[in-house]
Amino acid sequence: MRAGSYTTKSNEPIHYNQIPTRSEGMPIEDRLINLIESVWPEDYDVKSIAAACPGPLDPLNGIVVEPPNIPEWRYFPLQEFLHSTFDLPSAINNDANLAAYGEWSFGAGQGYSNLIYLTISTGIGGGIIIDNKLLTGNAGFAGEVGHMSVIPQGPTCSCGKEGHLEAIASGPSIVRWVKSRLEDDDLLDHFPEGELTAKHISDAAETGHELAIAAYERAGKYIGLSIADLLHIFNTSLIIIGGGVSMAGDLLFDPIRKSVSESVISDVYLDELQILPAALGDDSGLMGALVLSREIAAS
Amino acid sequence: MRAGSYTTKSNEPIHYNQIPTRSEGMPIEDRLINLIESVWPEDYDVKSIAAACPGPLDPLNGIVVEPPNIPEWRYFPLQEFLHSTFDLPSAINNDANLAAYGEWSFGAGQGYSNLIYLTISTGIGGGIIIDNKLLTGNAGFAGEVGHMSVIPQGPTCSCGKEGHLEAIASGPSIVRWVKSRLEDDDLLDHFPEGELTAKHISDAAETGHELAIAAYERAGKYIGLSIADLLHIFNTSLIIIGGGVSMAGDLLFDPIRKSVSESVISDVYLDELQILPAALGDDSGLMGALVLSREIAAS
Repeated sequence: MRAGSYTTKSNEPIHYNQIPTRSEGMPIEDRLINLIESVWPEDYDVKSIAAACPGPLDPLNGIVVEPPNIPEWRYFPLQEFLHSTFDLPSAINNDANLAAYGEWSFGAGQGYSNLIYLTISTGIGGGIIIDNKLLTGNAGFAGEVGHMSVIPQGPTCSCGKEGHLEAIASGPSIVRWVKSRLEDDDLLDHFPEGELTAKHISDAAETGHELAIAAYERAGKYIGLSIADLLHIFNTSLIIIGGGVSMAGDLLFDPIRKSVSESVISDVYLDELQILPAALGDDSGLMGALVLSREIAAS
Repeated sequence: MRAGSYTTKSNEPIHYNQIPTRSEGMPIEDRLINLIESVWPEDYDVKSIAAACPGPLDPLNGIVVEPPNIPEWRYFPLQEFLHSTFDLPSAINNDANLAAYGEWSFGAGQGYSNLIYLTISTGIGGGIIIDNKLLTGNAGFAGEVGHMSVIPQGPTCSCGKEGHLEAIASGPSIVRWVKSRLEDDDLLDHFPEGELTAKHISDAAETGHELAIAAYERAGKYIGLSIADLLHIFNTSLIIIGGGVSMAGDLLFDPIRKSVSESVISDVYLDELQILPAALGDDSGLMGALVLSREIAAS
């Protein structure tokens, strides 16, 4: 996890720090407090604290509902924890929603009133900006584009359902697909020993490994199909794609763009359409939390 | 096609008329003019005219793009045609979008700030209200929920692509699925002679015809799957379903509700969720056009 402290005006952090989320022997709450204290700006009055966390997450009540990688935070009232610990106005939202907010405010989405952000990573998440506002829905659970159904009775998703986009095109899903097709020789020749990752596969694709290329083409095809669905629903002119898997660049973006073009029902959906990589990299969520913290400081 | 004239205050029409869209020997423009003149309120100053038309349709420029059942209106500037014919402020939008608007203003969606409307008919369309505004998107082509991909390489859709919700759960798609499974005897025993319709199938289902029941269960299952996708994206608490096929009532709504419950990734999406039939019947589009006409009269 990472943290930064910022003034109300500048987007350059006063202090910035990053630590592994997990460590033996220390509760995650204590690690979080230590991290925040490590970036505390002694020369300033701190006005507010905001945090981007894995969803699903209830932003209206400030509760982390069921973060896949932090099981001890099931229904954890993180906003109240921050508020009571630091005695400051606090807010939380899910990381993909805040990444959309960050990209819209400071990244690839600046100047747009409407956009859809997707993050392709260990999971697939998203955030949607409509009329210069984050789409939250009835209780803050909007934007879960990774759980759009893509192949009925397809691979099992992290959520337990079948055939979701995340189960087909996330990093671990790309790895799973490649592993299911790898011959032993192939594995020895082209991939390092140890745990295979989406990055190993994109590296192999860059050297012309056909199965690795096919894996990204397949992921891109289904991501493009879901983006076409989203265009039919929203008719936005900007799609931003971030997350670790998107670092594969054209290897992923080319098949996405091809699939989108082939999947829309009319070229009107391609007019003015841009499909851009996220501009803020791993910091989009942090920058979205910055926007959120300024909002609560000002309110 | 149907038309009504209304005062600025009452939603009861002064005059109302309905005629078949097509007739031999008279251009559709002339039939439209005759229809409008037939409801013209002689005792009032008419302020504006609005029309709901099949999409895809460009509401910003007032152009009917490609109405499936009126081929001679490809790229027809209907708004300008109305404006120049009647010398009044005019506007058009697609019928599913305006039906959503109508249901939100006067029907099942009154009092809600966010809702998703689906019409299940010869096609499947939709309209989405976010923060008390119709979601139009970049150029007015939003809300095409019938063209969400449901089964890759599935049945061919009216748009030419494969496996869209419309290709699986619209009236003609339900008929196609039943026909492909009917035995000759079965056809003779349970269905009338002549062209089979979704209504014949729902009537047969009411008498216990297993294939007919299965047809609506299948349609409802996939509609529910797409609604779950929409809930993950929007987290709305109201889904309104209209259109001729929805008149089958519980036969369709029961499997839809079951599928939605089974398909959402968390019960948070079911909190406060209502899935309701449209309240305005065949007039939802007309009532949405009324709202639109009042908007342009007031602007």
